[in-house]
Order: sequence, then C-alpha cells, then structure tokens
Amino acid sequence: MDFELNEDQRAFVALAGDFADKALAPHAAQWDREHHFPVDTLQQAGELGFCALYTPEAAGGLGLSRLDASLIFERLAMGCTSTTAFLTIHNMVTWMIASTAEKAVWEPWREGMTSGRLLGSYCLTEPNAGSDAASLKTQAKKVGEDYELTGSKMFISGAGSTQVLVVMARTGGEGPGGISAFALNADSPGIEYGRPEDKMGWNSQPTRSVTFDGVRVSARQLLGREGEGFKLAMKGLDGGRINIASCSLGTAQQALNLACNYLQERSQFGRKLAEFQALQFTLADMATELTAARQLVRLAASRLDAGHADATTYCAMAKRFATDVGFRVCDRALQLYGGYGYIREYPLERHVRDTRVHRILEGTNEIMKLLIARRLLGEGGEL
Amino acid sequence: MDFELNEDQRAFVALAGDFADKALAPHAAQWDREHHFPVDTLQQAGELGFCALYTPEAAGGLGLSRLDASLIFERLAMGCTSTTAFLTIHNMVTWMIASTAEKAVWEPWREGMTSGRLLGSYCLTEPNAGSDAASLKTQAKKVGEDYELTGSKMFISGAGSTQVLVVMARTGGEGPGGISAFALNADSPGIEYGRPEDKMGWNSQPTRSVTFDGVRVSARQLLGREGEGFKLAMKGLDGGRINIASCSLGTAQQALNLACNYLQERSQFGRKLAEFQALQFTLADMATELTAARQLVRLAASRLDAGHADATTYCAMAKRFATDVGFRVCDRALQLYGGYGYIREYPLERHVRDTRVHRILEGTNEIMKLLIARRLLGEGGEL
Amino acid sequence: MDFELNEDQRAFVALAGDFADKALAPHAAQWDREHHFPVDTLQQAGELGFCALYTPEAAGGLGLSRLDASLIFERLAMGCTSTTAFLTIHNMVTWMIASTAEKAVWEPWREGMTSGRLLGSYCLTEPNAGSDAASLKTQAKKVGEDYELTGSKMFISGAGSTQVLVVMARTGGEGPGGISAFALNADSPGIEYGRPEDKMGWNSQPTRSVTFDGVRVSARQLLGREGEGFKLAMKGLDGGRINIASCSLGTAQQALNLACNYLQERSQFGRKLAEFQALQFTLADMATELTAARQLVRLAASRLDAGHADATTYCAMAKRFATDVGFRVCDRALQLYGGYGYIREYPLERHVRDTRVHRILEGTNEIMKLLIARRLLGEGGEL
Amino acid sequence: MDFELNEDQRAFVALAGDFADKALAPHAAQWDREHHFPVDTLQQAGELGFCALYTPEAAGGLGLSRLDASLIFERLAMGCTSTTAFLTIHNMVTWMIASTAEKAVWEPWREGMTSGRLLGSYCLTEPNAGSDAASLKTQAKKVGEDYELTGSKMFISGAGSTQVLVVMARTGGEGPGGISAFALNADSPGIEYGRPEDKMGWNSQPTRSVTFDGVRVSARQLLGREGEGFKLAMKGLDGGRINIASCSLGTAQQALNLACNYLQERSQFGRKLAEFQALQFTLADMATELTAARQLVRLAASRLDAGHADATTYCAMAKRFATDVGFRVCDRALQLYGGYGYIREYPLERHVRDTRVHRILEGTNEIMKLLIARRLLGEGGEL
Repeated sequence: MDFELNEDQRAFVALAGDFADKALAPHAAQWDREHHFPVDTLQQAGELGFCALYTPEAAGGLGLSRLDASLIFERLAMGCTSTTAFLTIHNMVTWMIASTAEKAVWEPWREGMTSGRLLGSYCLTEPNAGSDAASLKTQAKKVGEDYELTGSKMFISGAGSTQVLVVMARTGGEGPGGISAFALNADSPGIEYGRPEDKMGWNSQPTRSVTFDGVRVSARQLLGREGEGFKLAMKGLDGGRINIASCSLGTAQQALNLACNYLQERSQFGRKLAEFQALQFTLADMATELTAARQLVRLAASRLDAGHADATTYCAMAKRFATDVGFRVCDRALQLYGGYGYIREYPLERHVRDTRVHRILEGTNEIMKLLIARRLLGEGGEL
Repeated sequence: MDFELNEDQRAFVALAGDFADKALAPHAAQWDREHHFPVDTLQQAGELGFCALYTPEAAGGLGLSRLDASLIFERLAMGCTSTTAFLTIHNMVTWMIASTAEKAVWEPWREGMTSGRLLGSYCLTEPNAGSDAASLKTQAKKVGEDYELTGSKMFISGAGSTQVLVVMARTGGEGPGGISAFALNADSPGIEYGRPEDKMGWNSQPTRSVTFDGVRVSARQLLGREGEGFKLAMKGLDGGRINIASCSLGTAQQALNLACNYLQERSQFGRKLAEFQALQFTLADMATELTAARQLVRLAASRLDAGHADATTYCAMAKRFATDVGFRVCDRALQLYGGYGYIREYPLERHVRDTRVHRILEGTNEIMKLLIARRLLGEGGEL
Repeated sequence: MDFELNEDQRAFVALAGDFADKALAPHAAQWDREHHFPVDTLQQAGELGFCALYTPEAAGGLGLSRLDASLIFERLAMGCTSTTAFLTIHNMVTWMIASTAEKAVWEPWREGMTSGRLLGSYCLTEPNAGSDAASLKTQAKKVGEDYELTGSKMFISGAGSTQVLVVMARTGGEGPGGISAFALNADSPGIEYGRPEDKMGWNSQPTRSVTFDGVRVSARQLLGREGEGFKLAMKGLDGGRINIASCSLGTAQQALNLACNYLQERSQFGRKLAEFQALQFTLADMATELTAARQLVRLAASRLDAGHADATTYCAMAKRFATDVGFRVCDRALQLYGGYGYIREYPLERHVRDTRVHRILEGTNEIMKLLIARRLLGEGGEL
Repeated sequence: MDFELNEDQRAFVALAGDFADKALAPHAAQWDREHHFPVDTLQQAGELGFCALYTPEAAGGLGLSRLDASLIFERLAMGCTSTTAFLTIHNMVTWMIASTAEKAVWEPWREGMTSGRLLGSYCLTEPNAGSDAASLKTQAKKVGEDYELTGSKMFISGAGSTQVLVVMARTGGEGPGGISAFALNADSPGIEYGRPEDKMGWNSQPTRSVTFDGVRVSARQLLGREGEGFKLAMKGLDGGRINIASCSLGTAQQALNLACNYLQERSQFGRKLAEFQALQFTLADMATELTAARQLVRLAASRLDAGHADATTYCAMAKRFATDVGFRVCDRALQLYGGYGYIREYPLERHVRDTRVHRILEGTNEIMKLLIARRLLGEGGEL
C-alpha cells in the first residue's frame, strides 16, 4: 500500500493550486454575486488540460486516471467550488462522448471540448425522474434513420450556455433497458431553454430546464448502442460521484484553513480564539473527518480505475461521506467565524451554500445508502 | 403542571397565524430576493399589538408574558423568519425603553414604537466585541449635563431604516460595570450608517454598521442609571434568546409541515416518498427534536417570567438547543425536497439560510454552553 | 401553562429521593454484581405506595397520575435504574389487573400487589414476536368455561420470581383483534420458567422465558373482554414508555451529577478538569439535552393523563428521545471519568449498561419512529 | 497510490483470520464470562509470530511494518477484541525492549517474549497521572550503580500474570525530561500487585495496580538513556494508537457482519428485517464510516512507518476516529439485534463493552483532539 502522491500527481496538484489561487479564488465571490458563468476562465483551465483530464489520450485528452482527476478537482475547488463542479461535469461529458461516440461525431468537437472552447451539459434528470432516473420519459422516436427527441430535462448544469449536450432518452420500453444516450449540438432546432433557476448556491454556473420538441438527431449520434444509455449513465455517475466528492473535500479544506487562520487572529475575552479549548476540539474534529473522507474518496477512485467489482459501492460510500463531511466542515467553519461567517464579505457562507447541493446531486445521499445496503445485503460476501 | 395553552394564548396564536399566513408568507420570498424591509407590514403587525407584546400595559404595550410572546413569535415565524426576527428586536428595544427610560423620554416615542410607526434598533455588538460584549469600546464621555457618544457598532439589525436606537456605551472604566445604556433618535447629528451588509439570509431586514462621532445625548436619555447598561443588556438578552429560539421553532415547524406534504405528493420508483421508511424516520426525528425544543423554550420563558433564580441558564439552554434543532430540521427538510429544495422557487433553502444566523446571534451557541457550564460547575446545587 | 411541580409532587419526589438515596443507591452495585433481585426492598417501596402509584384509589392504589408517577420513577432511578425499572413493570401489571379484572379476581391479590408482597410480570414478547407483538402465537384455547394456554414468552422481567402474571394470548384469528389478556397465578400448573438470561445490565431483576403447556385459566381471569388484549397491551405500553423514559432521565441526571463532581475534584496538567473548556461544553450539552428530554416526557405524561388524541404519538416521542439522550448522557459521563469510568468500582459503566436496554424495550426506538411518522403522514393535521 | 494489500499482507491476514476464527472466536464469550486470561492461546499466537510482529528480525521478531501489524491485529480482533488488545500491548513491550535495551538484557527474554511464553506489561499510568502522563510520580532513585523504584501504577494490563514489565519512572526533575524507562522481571522483590479490577469489558485480560516498594534495578535495565523515557513512551503510544484503533476496526467489522446476517434471517411484520429501508440505511452508514476509519488507520500506520513529520498527528486522528466509529458501529449492531443484542448469548453486547475502553486508552480521545489541534494551530503549514 502507498498513500502518498507520486511526482506527477504532485506536479498536477501544484498546477491546479496555482490556477485555483490565481484564476479562481480572486473572482469566486463576484461570480457568485453576479451569477456569472466564467467561460473565459474555463477556457484557461482547458489550456492546462483540465477540460479533458481523463479523456483518453488517443481522443485528445490527458488520459489521467480518476484518482489523478480527483486530486486535481479537489485542489481546484479550493479556489471556486461552483466553477470546479461545472468543470467536472464538462469532463464527464467530454469523456463520455470521446469514449463512446463514433469517430465522425467526436472529431468535430474534439479540439473544442478538450480545450474548453466548447462546453458540455449532461441531460439526465427530469421533473418526475430525479432519484429514479430509470423512469425517465423523454422519447427518442425512430424516424427513418434518425431519431426525434421529445421531452423535458431539469436542473441541467450549464444549459443554455453550453454547445454540446449528452441526452438520455427512451428508445425502447420501460425501465433502464429502454434508454439510449445521444450527443448533439446544443443549438439543434427544437431545443428550448428555460430561464436560469435561482439557486441557493452554485451561482457561477447557470442551471436551466431543457425542452426537446421533435429534435432531429442522426442515429450516428448514439453513444454506444441503442439501449445502452442507462448503463453508460450509471458508469458516468460512478466517476461523477468521485468528482463531486472531491469538490466537497477541496472546499472543506479551504474552510478549515480559513478557520485555523481566523482563530489565530481574532481575540475575545483577552485571548486569541485559538486558545479556547472547545474551539480547538472543533478544529480537530473537522480535520479528522476531512482526512478520513479524503482517504475514502481516494480509495473509491482507485477502485474505479482498477475496475474493482465493488467500485460502484465504494463510489457511493465516498460520495455520501465526503459530501456530508464537507458540508459539516464548512458549516462549523462559518460558526467559528461568528457574525463574520454570515456575511458575504467572507467566503464561509458561500462555501456552505455551494457544498449544500453536493448532498443532493449525482444521486442523493439517500440513494447512496440504498446502493451500499443493497451490496451489503446481497451476494458477494463481506465488503 | 400544565402544558397546554390557555384560551387567551390560543386566541393570540390564532391571530398571529392569520397574520403570518396572509401578511407575511405570501411576500417572504420576494422580500428575501429584493432585500426589502417591509415597514408597512411591520406597522400592520403593530396594529395587532405585535410591536409591544411584553411592554407593560401602563406604558402602552400589551403587557403579555415572555411565554405569551414566545408563542406569538413562533407562529409569526412560520410566515417569515427574518421579518419576525426583526420584530422581536423591535419588541426588545421598545420594552427596554418603556421599562427603564424617564417618562419624558418614553412619552414622545410611546405611540410610535408601540404601533410600529417608529422602529427600534439595538446597538450592542462592536467589531472587536462580539461574544465578549463587556469589552465594548464605544465611549460616552460626560460633557456638562450631556454625554458624547463616539465609537462604532456592527451587525445592527434595522440600522439606517429605524428611528430609535438603544446604544450601549462606556461611561466608566473597563469591564461590565463601566457600561451604560442610552436611548436616542436614530437621526441624531453625528450618527452615520454603513452600507447594508450582504448576508446569507435575514434579507428582509437591513444590517448596517453605525458610527457615532461625538453624538450629543442628554443625561435624561440614560436607561436606568449610569453603569447599569450591561446588566440591562444581559436582562434583555435572556428574553432575546427566548425570542430567537421561538423564531427557530416556527421556521422549523413550517419546514416540517412542508416536508410532510411534499413526501405525500412526490413519487419516485412508483411509490409516494411517504412510503419510504428511511424518509419516514427522518420526519419522525425532526418532529421529535422540534417538540422537545419547543418544550424547553417554553420552560425557559416561563422561568424568565417567574424570575426563577436560574432563568438565565434555562434561556441559554433553550437558545442553544432550539436554534441548533431548528437549523437541522430545516436542513433535513431541504434534503427531503431533493433538487427542489436547493432552488429559490421553494422556501426550504431560505429557511436554512434564515435560521443559520440564529446559532450565532444573541450570544453564539458556544457562549450559551459557557453560561450553562458555569452554572453546572458553580454553586447552587443540582440544576 | 405551568412547568413547576406542585406541593404534593414535591413531597412525593422528596419521599422517593429519600428512598432512592438510602434504600437503593447503597446496594445497587452489589445487586448488579450478584444478580440479586431485592424483593425485600421492593416491599419497602410498596409500604410507601410505590407499588401501585397509578392504580385507582378505589382499587387500593394511590390513584396518582402518570405524570406524578413519572416524577417518582425518575427520582427512584437515581438510586437504582434496574430495580426502579422492575418497579415500573410491577406498577403496570398491578394497574392493569386492578383496572380491568373482575373484582373477584383482583380482591385476593389486592393487598399483596399494592404492597409489593406479591409481584407481577408482564408476558407479551415471544421469540418471534418482538416488535411485531400483534403476531404473537401463544394460544388460549377455549375448553368448556376455561381456557388452556399453550406457548412461549421471552424476555419476561421478574419471571420465576414473581407471583402474578399478565399473559397476552390468542383467543381468535390472526392479528391484533384475536388477542386476549389473562391474569393468573405464576405457579399455575403447566407453567415452566427458563434459566435466567445473562444480560448486559438490568441485573437486579431476573429475566426468563416462560413456557405455558396447557395451563388452565378460568374465563373470569380475562382482563376486559375476549379480543381486547392487544388494545389493552397498547394502552399499557403508552404508560410503559413514559415509565422507562423516566428511568432514563433519572439515571442520566445521576450520571451528570457525578460527572460535575468528578470534574471539580480531579486534576490533570495542574488544573481541575472543570477548568477545561471542552469538558465544560460536554457537561453543558448533557444538561441541555437532558432538560429537553425531561420536558418532553412530562408533556407526554400529561397528555396521556388528559386522554389527548395524540397521546400515543407523544409517548413514542418521549420514549425515543429520553432513552437515546439518557444513554448518551451516561456514555459521556463515563468518558469524563476516563479509566475510572470503565471499572465497576464506580457506577458509570453500570449506568451505561442499564440504560442501554431502554432503547430496545417497550417497543424499540425504531418502532417509536414508525409510530410518530405514521401520525405525521396520516390524518389529523399538524401535530 | 495503492490501496490494496500485497500478496504477503494477504497471506498474513489469512493466517490471522484462521487463528481468529478457530482459536479465538469460539472461546471469547467464555473468557469474558469467566475472566480467563488465555495464556495458552497467546503462546499459540506466538508460534505464528504474532507476539513480535514489528520487533526487528535481528532481535528475533518478524520485522513487519506497523501497517502490516495493523492488518493482522484488525483481523485477530474479529475473533476476540480483548485478547487481541492484550496481544498488541505485549507486542509494544517486546518491540520496545528489543529495540532499546542492552543486548544482555534482551537476550535472556528474547526467545520467551517473541514466542509468547513470557508476556509483558506496560507500566505508565498512575492514579493521578492518566492523561497527564508527564506528571508521573513513581521514583527511580539512583543508589550506587542501581536504581530503586518506588511508587504505584494503575490500570496495568496483564499485571500479575505477566513476566516482564516496562516501567516509566522519574529519575530527574519534573516534567517529561525527568522520566526514564526500565525493563525488569515482574517478580522482582518489592513489587506487589493489587486485586484484579472488575471492568465493564476487556475481561480476558487481568488489570491490576502495581506497587513498587524500593525495587532494585540495575542501570543496565534502562531502555535508552536516562531521561529518554517519556520520548520513548510517546513513540510507543503512536504505534499503540494504531493498534487499538485496529482492534476497534476488527470488532466493528465483526459486528457489522453479524448484523447483516441477522437482518437477513430475522422477520417481523411478515418481512425480513433486511427489507426495512431504515435498517438498510443504518447498515450503510455503519459500513461507510467503518471503511473511512479503516483507510484513516492505514494512512496513519503508513506514515508512522515512513517517519512522516506529522505521524503523531495522523495516529491521533486514526485513534480518535476509529475508536469512536468502532464503538458506534457495535452499538448500532446491538440495536439491530433488539432484545437479543442485550443478552450475553449473543456477542453484540460484549463487542460494545470491549470497544468502549478504546475511546479512553492510549490517550483519551479528548487528548487526541488536543494533539490534533496543537498541530493545526502550530507551525508546519496546512496539514
């Protein structure tokens, strides 16, 4: 066993750190306040390779492992949680298309998506199919050699400001086996975008509903084969869970660092806050839980990379634990700041708002528990 | 022992409920979004007596008990947490002036403050004196028969939009014994207001810093005698803690009600969410903790009313427990709503943001623990 | 509302306190160690009326309310959790027979049961019918004017050392409607007792299985009418939950008191433990949660006394919350004692062992959550 | 990074598993009940090398890493927590003497201690020096070339039944710098043992006080140099914390496995317990927290092996987290068993009792938090 980063990983993390500190952190508060989607900054990230981290090298990506990507996303999230979270979605979309699309479909997007000039959105969730994604209703009706997409998607990150969509739609009967995945241009005729949702956080990325009204897509735009969409979506989710967990880790680390500094600067009752034992214990708990969560995320990423038989279960554990811990760490950091934690002049309340959605996205933490329990009570022996 | 509301209390709660449902709830989201301070609505509340609930009848108030007021504030908070919270502050200021000021000072404000036409702010906290209020630095220098106030206050609710201020300032040496309380017009020469703080929540009430630059106040404007300010502040805080705890109870009850309804309406995996046992257990925990918190708040209010020797300790317990539970209940309700909980179209994320500050205000929950422990480890026997 | 004890209640609590401190506390450790069932002490308790607290006066009891009894049981449990817990069971059995049996059945037991000379056991649980009591299988077959009981009961407190049994058995078809309750002599022919269970705690009361092999009981020994047994059992459980919750409160209060004293006596690093802020905060949390739990128990008892429509829900909340809090308080007190908390020379580890079963008995805390959720999601409006 | 066991580690774990399942598990309940110290079994463990796992090969041990040892102890604890915990202490004592004693001192014990024929106890804690070990008072007075030990030790595992003692005693002034470590025969003249403490758990190892009344030890029996005792003790504790944390992991894994099986066997309300969602979620939480704790322990062990600058901090985190999680997992497993969890016929209540002391031993979890906070607030940058 080896728990330390290798030289390459250290270099990537340093690069990400530099970008986070210089290109993200100074603007994060403003992006949050102004609900600004920083496409320029995403392109800069793309120049460093951060838009196609685990897209295979052959397809134009860096070909890194999920574990490598997790390290990078964690560090980036220290700069801006919401922007990094969008970046993870773009990475997933890029990887999915690059890995499964026909070459002729991928090629025109290749340079743009790997460089961040073209951004991607992932259209899975529907108004009545959140946790129960397999019941989605968007239709992809066969019309000659083409398909026609009709239906609505909801809570789509980046939608309306991205150029490429992956859409899960029903080509067959009920249940997971009837679902297929398509990649298409975001401005295809028949696509309409709702107005941006006003959210608690994640304000540097727009979230909109997407309506498909007889949108024509060629059969070549299928990802994988007909009926393989749900399987592909689930595979994407394993990695998506690692990614979102990594964003929680980074944000929480940032909040912990801030709290450590604040306690050493602020005095009350004639003593530094850092001298109050109960506050010390709070910091210790934050650091301990965060370190445990980080190890769990890395274990899961490593097993996902290795194709471990229980990778899905470990990804579910990592997502559940790291997003709960991440939120709690941010919440306690806010509390340590007292009144200053509650005002937007300081980043703590933003960290709380931004990490709150991680407990819901990519499968709620309740769904994670279902997945874990199913494995514990199923076959396969002791976990 | 009797744990049930009497007829008068039921009537007041019904009145508050009607007001909350009709005058507060329909506008709360908009006030939050637009950072609107609803002075008209506060005046309507005043017409019902809600601006001077526990101000003595002889001084123009309703003369209710703290317990009665707690019941009313709890119900009002079901309509709008932030507006109700401001109302509790106005009630405290009104009560404090009405109970301790010279008649000649109170009389000109009497009709206005009890009716809500004139609103009050409470100026205690300073940039470097948050939890450690006794170390405040704002000076009140004796100049002939008058005082001159110089210094800065921070996080002042309503400041800049209110007409009357209670200000704690130092007339003597260091420590609590050197502090006096003054009541003055908010537009007295020499007072300046900062720009509104941008906060996580509590957006229907402006929060500003207040700077006093040689503000002249007559000695008649002292509340109580010189040097009694801190004692008065602490007495005010006991009640303030009951009030803020009550706001948490009401908001949490509203969140719980919403979650119960949502679970009965929303289906996933072909079943109502209400049929999923783990979600049922979550609701049960929310209701149980909330009911326990409510009883603790009422016990504390009752003991404050009775002048119980340990009233301060019970108020501290009630504030700590009810604000922690209140936040947790809102947070779990948000989670039960899933993605819908995170968007501002639904009130859950606002409930989370609004109740978050209750754990910090009126003495942080850490200060509450100090107070409780001091009593447990001091004299006076088993609590 | 009134949260204070009246004069009578204070007197009863003082009496209970005297008994707890003198007759229970000095022996509790020994009874635990030697697994001694203190029948003499139970008789002394009977002399004070503690064996028939809420049995109607007309039937020879004190006729107190459930709330009164809760106050007394709480105080007694400060002396010995396990013995008090048995006493609550005896009280339930006595009340049930006295309230529902034919006079001719009750009369011969009246003096003995109310005085504690005759002790009662409650036979509901079966090996395969724990939480799901309504599925019990013990048969009561009609044979002429009599019934014949056949089946097994499990985890029966006092069994083998008591003189009177209440037995729930099936006189009809499946489900709750087929269950009837019987009162009978514990040495009736055909009854056999298993060997005492070796338990984690509750060692001052024996727990045995009871086997009925064609035990003949007269129809007169029915409590209420045929088919009313389950309803009666559930009614008994409401009170039983208040009782067991009260035992948790008292034990936890005792543990808290001990911890407060210990922290003031023990020094480490040159300072009293009481001066360490993190330990102070622990004490504050213990006291706060315990006080909240106490209020919830009293609310529930009061509503049970008043026949409140939601009494069962409040009893379930009180049982769930007070037994969880009680255990946690004892566990933290043990921790504050450090190594001394782990050895039997000090009572802390016994308090942890004794309160552990309260989360399981009288309906597990999971069953409590089911009951609460059912009410929240059912009809009847906001709780 | 690599999170998987290598081939050697798998082999060792398999060996430990075989031993745990055949030589420990079948007897653990009896050893607990009869307070039996299984010296024969410890010798069998010695034959497999388990008595000197990380003692250097040159000194007769297996020369494994702390991480390897952690894997083995974790697996052994699945068989018997208390016996494995003693084994970890013996390993520490053996390693300490083998690594630091003069050859002439080690040689006569070498074969015995590495084979488990001679067992070791570790004498650090004193009645008034628990958490504050540096204030210990046992004197080692220089008398010619020898020392004379006088004082008392408390809570000494194995004492009275072991053959070799490591004793920390004061050779110099106050504080850590005045402490030295000695190794001596347990039957040296002047040593007296108290009667076995009656404990909540850990019953398969005797715990006694040890009194030294002018016990003569040669200067050659010093471990390291005079004044190096505390440093050595602290180094021992880093490893000791990994060890005890590993015992918590193994016990919790065993409890989780049992609970998974029980839920699949036991039915209530006509369905397997495994079908109840709230119980499924409980299992999922248990497994998730346990997996996170395991990773944290392995990280800390690995960093201890590598001589990482922050190894002490990571060991403190691992000990705090894994022992808290371990206890909680056992406690929830007991709850899932319901009434059966509370009786000694099943191992759950023993697991709860045995793991309870892990939160206290080897530095209480409160001391762990102090250590972690000191590092977070000290120099050395982000952890």
